[in-house]
Amino acid sequence: MIAQPQRQAGSVSVVEVSLGDRSYPILVGRGVAAEAGSRVAALGVRAVGLVTDETVGPLHGGAVEASLSAAGLRVVRATVPAGEGSKRFDRLDALCETLLAGRLERGDAVLALGGGVVGDLAGFAAAILLRGIRFVQVPTTLLAQVDSSVGGKTGINARAGKNLVGAFHQPALVLADTALLDTLSPREMRAGYAETVKYGLIGDPDFYAWCEAQWRDVLAGGAARDRAVVESCRAKAAVVARDEREDGDRALLNLGHTFGHALERAVGYDGARLVHGEGVAIGMAQAFRFSARLGLCPPEDALRVERHLATVGLPTRPAQVPGGIGTAGTLMDAMAQDKKVRAGRLTFILAHGIGRSVVVRDVSPDDLRTFLEDDLRT
Amino acid sequence: MIAQPQRQAGSVSVVEVSLGDRSYPILVGRGVAAEAGSRVAALGVRAVGLVTDETVGPLHGGAVEASLSAAGLRVVRATVPAGEGSKRFDRLDALCETLLAGRLERGDAVLALGGGVVGDLAGFAAAILLRGIRFVQVPTTLLAQVDSSVGGKTGINARAGKNLVGAFHQPALVLADTALLDTLSPREMRAGYAETVKYGLIGDPDFYAWCEAQWRDVLAGGAARDRAVVESCRAKAAVVARDEREDGDRALLNLGHTFGHALERAVGYDGARLVHGEGVAIGMAQAFRFSARLGLCPPEDALRVERHLATVGLPTRPAQVPGGIGTAGTLMDAMAQDKKVRAGRLTFILAHGIGRSVVVRDVSPDDLRTFLEDDLRT
Repeated sequence: MIAQPQRQAGSVSVVEVSLGDRSYPILVGRGVAAEAGSRVAALGVRAVGLVTDETVGPLHGGAVEASLSAAGLRVVRATVPAGEGSKRFDRLDALCETLLAGRLERGDAVLALGGGVVGDLAGFAAAILLRGIRFVQVPTTLLAQVDSSVGGKTGINARAGKNLVGAFHQPALVLADTALLDTLSPREMRAGYAETVKYGLIGDPDFYAWCEAQWRDVLAGGAARDRAVVESCRAKAAVVARDEREDGDRALLNLGHTFGHALERAVGYDGARLVHGEGVAIGMAQAFRFSARLGLCPPEDALRVERHLATVGLPTRPAQVPGGIGTAGTLMDAMAQDKKVRAGRLTFILAHGIGRSVVVRDVSPDDLRTFLEDDLRT
Repeated sequence: MIAQPQRQAGSVSVVEVSLGDRSYPILVGRGVAAEAGSRVAALGVRAVGLVTDETVGPLHGGAVEASLSAAGLRVVRATVPAGEGSKRFDRLDALCETLLAGRLERGDAVLALGGGVVGDLAGFAAAILLRGIRFVQVPTTLLAQVDSSVGGKTGINARAGKNLVGAFHQPALVLADTALLDTLSPREMRAGYAETVKYGLIGDPDFYAWCEAQWRDVLAGGAARDRAVVESCRAKAAVVARDEREDGDRALLNLGHTFGHALERAVGYDGARLVHGEGVAIGMAQAFRFSARLGLCPPEDALRVERHLATVGLPTRPAQVPGGIGTAGTLMDAMAQDKKVRAGRLTFILAHGIGRSVVVRDVSPDDLRTFLEDDLRT
């Protein structure tokens, strides 16, 4: 008798994103990337545009391509430079031409193998190639697994700001292989952790407390890491299912992001100085400090958030960004270009406490400026 | 007593495109562009990105801008070069940056004032700016009024082929001002007429017969022109409402387009040699000749179509394209890149007769080659 390959029971968790005829599963677990071929073939796809970057490609590209080929899928490979600089129109143009030259058809798919940049760029290409073909995410960073690969936001940056050009294009499948995270640097893991703990801060004080207790195991790997990814995907899926296009409370997911994006913009998206998750960490700490200052949130909650992020090794203050980030005016100008601006008014995600975030649509520019001026001094 | 402005009863027709919460009206009539300001303001928009080209801008841009401003809307103007060359990534990039620099927000709108190129480019920009803002069409060519401004197809060209990159993004409003057509050249009017008569050929033999009788008045203006625009919009709206994303019989609207796109590609999209509507005219004649040859359609119907198009002054044979269009092989290669290719098979819109078009999904490459070889000789 020939032995069948063993599948460990319970090793793969499935989180369903419920969006009617655009619903899709997120598979979480060690080794799920090896199922890419069979899972994508089951979608009825014949050819796959495998998009990765120069860092991830050599690490994991061969295995994913082999899985796709073994399932009888034709693979069109496209590799982009690693880093935020690939989220540009000219890179999108080149990527689209590469995939079209590979003769992808309407029934085919684009598969993103990489972090948030690859997912955002490849997903946007999938959204606009032939006016939209299917999209599969195989996120390789913690940040992408818990955040950017779920929910259908895709896009590139503009001179005027980050993610200002893009599309809502839901994936047909997400394979979050937690074993792929073993190759991440500690800094990347921490940055992804910031987006993980965010779900606790938004609406789940128990998950936040669990994070405070388990963060070392989340970063180290094993069952705690899988659980953190599953809980994060569940939290995000619930919000996305309620409000796919961010007309309402999907905006809560932007906790820390209005501040964070302004910081990223102030450093010119220089990842050596500040990666996205670090910007979000500072931004979440700022959102809680600002909430406390406005009397919305108990000051002890703001302190507790700041203490936990600092314990993990994340920055919590703009002054910690190497080289500084300019003045309050610099940050306010950057915020004025944010997509979340409505009718010229700034929308912030603030908090009544840990796990009690709220959308505040009409923040006073004076309050904001005074807060930022003080916050930049400390 | 102060006299109220008069509105001639019956001068404006409204065609509704029924797409659930994305339904929108098409207003057809002489002078409806003057209503742009009040109609767009009624959508709740505060600022408008007014996109036009270097030909249309000087003719009609001032009047539309004045109408928008008079309604209290802030106008961000963007002008692109006239012609198919503007449907490129670098032009899209520049347009997006211009509109973002003008601080358009999520609740604002892009208004396309121009022909198909401006509509396709500006509509695509609206689809991807801030992941999608509202879009208003004020088509200024007959072709755009009867075809490209209705149905939500937007996009740009790729090196691999025409319209291979884009989005489905329905407008919120279409203002088809038939008085604007008075400035068109006879060649442009004829090109647009090809798309008009197409609706008769697809599914309405009575409208086709009406076109045969009334085509001079359609081109000359007046009530026949308005009726031709209204009937065309109605026909297209009905198809789009049934099949928004072209999963099924929306493909019928591509009658003449698989052949036509291949011809356009063969001349390098050189509008001096062949404009889109002329390609469609030849393509429709080819589709009927090919249908007759395959025994699908009575030969006399193919002759009748060819005769009418020629009477109007439209080309019906590839050999009529100045400079020639290459061999059957050239055209077949161009067709192989068509979006309508599925699983490597060519889909054609063929006909059982006038007003009886059908989608044929599995055309034999041998039949096609033999037909093209003969067709190129005549």
